[in-house]
Amino acid sequence: MSGKARVRARRMPRAERERQMLDAAVRVIGRHGYQAASMDEIAEAAGVSKPLVYLYLHSKEALFTACVEREARTLIAAISEAVGQRDPADGQLWSGLLAFFRYADERADGWRVLHVQARTHGEPFARLADTMRARVLGFVTALLTSAARAADGTRDLGEHELTGLAHALVGAAESLATRAADDPALTPTASARTLMDFAWTGLGGLVAGERWS
Amino acid sequence: MSGKARVRARRMPRAERERQMLDAAVRVIGRHGYQAASMDEIAEAAGVSKPLVYLYLHSKEALFTACVEREARTLIAAISEAVGQRDPADGQLWSGLLAFFRYADERADGWRVLHVQARTHGEPFARLADTMRARVLGFVTALLTSAARAADGTRDLGEHELTGLAHALVGAAESLATRAADDPALTPTASARTLMDFAWTGLGGLVAGERWS
Repeated sequence: MSGKARVRARRMPRAERERQMLDAAVRVIGRHGYQAASMDEIAEAAGVSKPLVYLYLHSKEALFTACVEREARTLIAAISEAVGQRDPADGQLWSGLLAFFRYADERADGWRVLHVQARTHGEPFARLADTMRARVLGFVTALLTSAARAADGTRDLGEHELTGLAHALVGAAESLATRAADDPALTPTASARTLMDFAWTGLGGLVAGERWS
Repeated sequence: MSGKARVRARRMPRAERERQMLDAAVRVIGRHGYQAASMDEIAEAAGVSKPLVYLYLHSKEALFTACVEREARTLIAAISEAVGQRDPADGQLWSGLLAFFRYADERADGWRVLHVQARTHGEPFARLADTMRARVLGFVTALLTSAARAADGTRDLGEHELTGLAHALVGAAESLATRAADDPALTPTASARTLMDFAWTGLGGLVAGERWS
């Protein structure tokens, strides 16, 4: 084994172990809350010693920050990978929303860390959550802008207005994900359908009996 | 002066003073955050002594709880008073949204206490904020239900679906109020118009050049 390969062999387990620690931390913090979560419990759930958690992630605050950042990256990657660039605008929106609600369902602890815990335990974490949310908003604004351009709606919809619509859509999605977390009978498909009905067809169409399809 | 009148005379200033303390607390907590806000600062802003604040509101936690409850009551009253029961459904929604964005604009500190501070400082306050939000959701669900009934859309829209639409609408409104708080150029009317376009006309209509009017 060359020197380089040995270094790589030592490094791989580190990345893997760090991933295990973050998985454990997200699980413990998502379920019991940041305040109640102890480093002992997180180390045990990760199957490592507590000093090793401190060695890798330095402090409970740094571990929490790393969890928030990783969950945000995972969510954004899931959405952007799901959206087919060549689909029609409503198809892109549907795929993106479905990916979002699936993330919130399958990684329920991650979603709680990102949306609830990061906003519940003081301002540095809340600011980080805002920064991560701004990235999602940017993505959604771009998606709506290309949708409007495809339909030649850019004559009517300015950048400022499209940003406003993105804020409305993201807020509606967050609210429905919170609802789904409280009601296990609600599937990601059901939430995505409700939001497509709301956001695409609009209440005006809905009360008149229309539906998005 | 009879005994009863004397009691009433002593009681009136108490209610008034308590209101002043809450006003001051909302201002200080809304601007500097719950953690940074001191009872000294709140007492000074209210023009009373610190022991008097403790006598009336017992603790910083109790004072904060009273602030959250009062702001939620004020917001709900503003919305429900604005909605004319005999207006068409979209007119009712417009009035309700305008009242909401006006509250968030005129009582910016109150909105920050309710929506940001109550969710940023631990779970008992976050739970209270959720309870208050559930009341708003109930009101909006009832409004959408009567809108659907008026348009005979109840054949198509079940209770569960209407609750989902209410969650979407409330989440969208919160998100736009947060945006408006960060951008002083955005008026309550502009935010209400964006949300009516989004929620009533829908993105499908908007990209095709439609607007709510």
